[in-house]
Amino acid sequence: MEKNLEIDKTDLKILSLLMQDAKMPYTTIGEKIFVSGGTVHVRMNKMEQMGIVKGSQLIVDPIKLGWDISAFLGIYLDKSELYDTVADQLENIPEVVSINYTTGQYSIFVKIVCRDTQHLREVLHDKIQKVGGINRTETFISLEERFNRPIPLV
Amino acid sequence: MEKNLEIDKTDLKILSLLMQDAKMPYTTIGEKIFVSGGTVHVRMNKMEQMGIVKGSQLIVDPIKLGWDISAFLGIYLDKSELYDTVADQLENIPEVVSINYTTGQYSIFVKIVCRDTQHLREVLHDKIQKVGGINRTETFISLEERFNRPIPLV
Amino acid sequence: MEKNLEIDKTDLKILSLLMQDAKMPYTTIGEKIFVSGGTVHVRMNKMEQMGIVKGSQLIVDPIKLGWDISAFLGIYLDKSELYDTVADQLENIPEVVSINYTTGQYSIFVKIVCRDTQHLREVLHDKIQKVGGINRTETFISLEERFNRPIPLV
Amino acid sequence: MEKNLEIDKTDLKILSLLMQDAKMPYTTIGEKIFVSGGTVHVRMNKMEQMGIVKGSQLIVDPIKLGWDISAFLGIYLDKSELYDTVADQLENIPEVVSINYTTGQYSIFVKIVCRDTQHLREVLHDKIQKVGGINRTETFISLEERFNRPIPLV
Amino acid sequence: MEKNLEIDKTDLKILSLLMQDAKMPYTTIGEKIFVSGGTVHVRMNKMEQMGIVKGSQLIVDPIKLGWDISAFLGIYLDKSELYDTVADQLENIPEVVSINYTTGQYSIFVKIVCRDTQHLREVLHDKIQKVGGINRTETFISLEERFNRPIPLV
Amino acid sequence: MEKNLEIDKTDLKILSLLMQDAKMPYTTIGEKIFVSGGTVHVRMNKMEQMGIVKGSQLIVDPIKLGWDISAFLGIYLDKSELYDTVADQLENIPEVVSINYTTGQYSIFVKIVCRDTQHLREVLHDKIQKVGGINRTETFISLEERFNRPIPLV
Amino acid sequence: MEKNLEIDKTDLKILSLLMQDAKMPYTTIGEKIFVSGGTVHVRMNKMEQMGIVKGSQLIVDPIKLGWDISAFLGIYLDKSELYDTVADQLENIPEVVSINYTTGQYSIFVKIVCRDTQHLREVLHDKIQKVGGINRTETFISLEERFNRPIPLV
Amino acid sequence: MEKNLEIDKTDLKILSLLMQDAKMPYTTIGEKIFVSGGTVHVRMNKMEQMGIVKGSQLIVDPIKLGWDISAFLGIYLDKSELYDTVADQLENIPEVVSINYTTGQYSIFVKIVCRDTQHLREVLHDKIQKVGGINRTETFISLEERFNRPIPLV
Repeated sequence: MEKNLEIDKTDLKILSLLMQDAKMPYTTIGEKIFVSGGTVHVRMNKMEQMGIVKGSQLIVDPIKLGWDISAFLGIYLDKSELYDTVADQLENIPEVVSINYTTGQYSIFVKIVCRDTQHLREVLHDKIQKVGGINRTETFISLEERFNRPIPLV
Repeated sequence: MEKNLEIDKTDLKILSLLMQDAKMPYTTIGEKIFVSGGTVHVRMNKMEQMGIVKGSQLIVDPIKLGWDISAFLGIYLDKSELYDTVADQLENIPEVVSINYTTGQYSIFVKIVCRDTQHLREVLHDKIQKVGGINRTETFISLEERFNRPIPLV
Repeated sequence: MEKNLEIDKTDLKILSLLMQDAKMPYTTIGEKIFVSGGTVHVRMNKMEQMGIVKGSQLIVDPIKLGWDISAFLGIYLDKSELYDTVADQLENIPEVVSINYTTGQYSIFVKIVCRDTQHLREVLHDKIQKVGGINRTETFISLEERFNRPIPLV
Repeated sequence: MEKNLEIDKTDLKILSLLMQDAKMPYTTIGEKIFVSGGTVHVRMNKMEQMGIVKGSQLIVDPIKLGWDISAFLGIYLDKSELYDTVADQLENIPEVVSINYTTGQYSIFVKIVCRDTQHLREVLHDKIQKVGGINRTETFISLEERFNRPIPLV
Repeated sequence: MEKNLEIDKTDLKILSLLMQDAKMPYTTIGEKIFVSGGTVHVRMNKMEQMGIVKGSQLIVDPIKLGWDISAFLGIYLDKSELYDTVADQLENIPEVVSINYTTGQYSIFVKIVCRDTQHLREVLHDKIQKVGGINRTETFISLEERFNRPIPLV
Repeated sequence: MEKNLEIDKTDLKILSLLMQDAKMPYTTIGEKIFVSGGTVHVRMNKMEQMGIVKGSQLIVDPIKLGWDISAFLGIYLDKSELYDTVADQLENIPEVVSINYTTGQYSIFVKIVCRDTQHLREVLHDKIQKVGGINRTETFISLEERFNRPIPLV
Repeated sequence: MEKNLEIDKTDLKILSLLMQDAKMPYTTIGEKIFVSGGTVHVRMNKMEQMGIVKGSQLIVDPIKLGWDISAFLGIYLDKSELYDTVADQLENIPEVVSINYTTGQYSIFVKIVCRDTQHLREVLHDKIQKVGGINRTETFISLEERFNRPIPLV
Repeated sequence: MEKNLEIDKTDLKILSLLMQDAKMPYTTIGEKIFVSGGTVHVRMNKMEQMGIVKGSQLIVDPIKLGWDISAFLGIYLDKSELYDTVADQLENIPEVVSINYTTGQYSIFVKIVCRDTQHLREVLHDKIQKVGGINRTETFISLEERFNRPIPLV
């Protein structure tokens, strides 16, 4: 596949470092992997143009910010064909932080975050269940997210 | 709860911007929310000390890097009490990118990434199923991750 | 949360005693926890005003009164959004003694009591299944309620 | 069945009133059902001796006391025959407020109360899952207990 | 319950013998249980009038008659309330030999008999699935009916 | 298959009548199907020798005899291979009235009869669950046996 | 059954060899089973006329041709009676390589082949889920087809 | 991937014809796709060397040969890691015609063929359930294999 024809080990090492700390200076990266800061710059430009690098984000601790509950929802649709319609509506609910369209017994896997049990009730009862096309949901409360880490590039 | 006593709307606005672009300069943030860059700096220092800000990460497109398959695994344990042991072993498998300890019919929810079907077979057969304490897994292949976005701070 | 700001250990000790015997005289309570009966009185007034104390009830043995069967019902709705409508109708059925709105595979958890199998059949067939919006129910007959006790305050 | 041979409509009316308010004076009850307070007293004595009346309890609002989460657990045992052993161990966990031995896919139905998600995690992970003989549990968080009322005597 | 007030051990012994061989002469029964044949006759008349004895039937070996397949069907209804309608329609299908209305995940349990796989296909596809109100069925083929015996009276 | 080579329509008509009333005299049968009573006798002898006719049984109403509860049990074994061992033990429990070895999610389907909920508890807890090799059972209480009729011979 | 009356051991040996290699010359077959090539020819003609032999096919390795994913789909219908309609529509989807109408919890079992995850998404989302009458599907990705061999004739 | 670098449309057209009739002469194929028979020969040699073409097989009608029952088995293992051991043992059972290692709730999907219900019982009870490492199987009898066709090459 031509998409990663231009990707070599140096590129992957650069990505790997930035996936753990998006703000690491290019000169520091260069020192770590024995290339110049300018090379890091050129490679990052290339990967941004190729669509491999899509941006960067701050990582925060949701619990410390008062978001005590995160949960996964397995969603059964009224009809499998309603996936696009339902996903569009779910996207409008801010507490929904990710949506996956999956094989297996659920059509859609959703991750939500809530402040407390009362908030969870509002999100499930007043938001998710008002979405047309959803038949039934199963809720899996996360008691602990042990880790959430980047894909293993190198 | 005292943990967010010191957090105000300005703090949340700063976080919210950086959760979408970790590399936005503090002066740009300051302009957007009508405070000085120095204030942004002070607030970020505070939130790092409080443990709210944990770091930053580059966002990449796994498919463009040749990681074609991502999947969720619902894991049944031999005994519920084996959670810690199993989670420790799963953490040693690089293709496992997140682990959640959940209520509901599965004890553990895992997300994995693989290069192709052959790699998926290796991860499931040669790595996950060799973990002592796992009884059975159900695999949900993600056909599309529609989005994966930060928690809604403001 | 300000709601229990005014609650201290003395309050909890009082509640704890009355949750095991609602008719224990305030002077007896006072002797047990080394305060005056008047203090117990003042504290109870406060907690009634705060909405913490909602009333008292006699505890009877249903089987000795001829109610031989108690059962839990897991209810699947036609659509998750029908919860309020269905709960209102269930509330009109006297044999339904509690309703919980739950996460997990069932939308609603109900406890019912019946005199015998024939009565159970009537409640399920003639009452519960006539409720509009219920798709299907699963019935778990209780063979023994080992205990049912107050929350552990102290 | 001889056990309720001695129970008549007057007895049931008395019970019914006290099941809604355990502290209603016998004279008030007498006035409501057109008998003397002495008759109420005699009847209550009889029903206590028959084991029908087992006590009384204060009703409190758990959420106002800071117990934010209540949940039902469906428990699968390693072997069905372990019911008694497991139930004994569960009885020693104060957060377990009721245990039912049931037909259907779960062997045991348990209700627990917790202060928050972190407490729920401790109860499930450090207490319930340490009980020998439990294979797996499914957790149903109660988002709302709509009501919980006495059995319909009259 | 008055229904079995008039039933004594002699009655049960008579029933028990006839439930294993409906054609045993009353005199033989009398000899076995030390009463006269006339007594047996009187008792049987009584039990027929009470509705306890409903008839008798020849027991045949279905496989020897070319009915190779017997199966249980767990039936899910479109709506639980459709039980009566569906049961009426099922009664018109001769291959349906029994219907039970049950608690648990299926609303109806049916036993069917068929001559061979082709016949099973016809019964399921052309008869059962044409019944209005049935959503889905699960089929459990009986590989062996180990025994099928009377209730244990004595 | 040679086993029903000797069976003709006359045989089936005879069986069909006796499967509804085992005590119908052969002369009555003969009149109904236009053969002599002697022919009926000869045919019945033949079918007894062929093992087609296995006996006869009285049909009673279990509820009128005080057997209020009948239930189906779906049994999961520790290991599928334990079927014979488990079935042998189940056969020793008098309340078990039939056993089927089945395809599908349960290995064994059992029908039991009990006098009341207390008796059901004893049968499940003290008898079935003591059987070595049973992992778990699901209980389906029959709320109504609508009918239970012979196979449709003619 | 008269259908295989004319089939003898020689026929089965011929079939068995050709089921492993459809292009084996009749003379080679004859030598292996000690008959003449003419006999093989006569027997094959007979079995073609009887409809036993339906054709022959080349066996290819789908993965070597770039078909990386094969999967089984368990299909739940809106109503069991829709089987024929749904099967007709599925037959028009080229990636569907087999359809079985089954007992058990799924009404239909389908095998599909796809080139990659993206193709799988198109087949499930744009083709299968557009079929009217399908309620829900469960997808089982095959990680390895260990073997796929002829029925054991001899 | 280099494996199909050498495959062009002509190759696929040749395969496609032979996958429907393995015995079609190369000259006939050549005429249909406008190349010489020699070209067909060269291409087939190439594809055999590449491992794309693995052989050919006669297609027979199992029912006409007296194999009345085909069934799919979903197999749950004692431990997921036992896959290889169990698959090896299943391979020794001639009635098992294919094995797939799958994602989803079953670890293994097996197809079996049997002559009749009695034979099915033997295969399940005496062969499959004797395989060490199998915990439980679910059986889906195929009532009709509507079609089974080659992958869609062109």
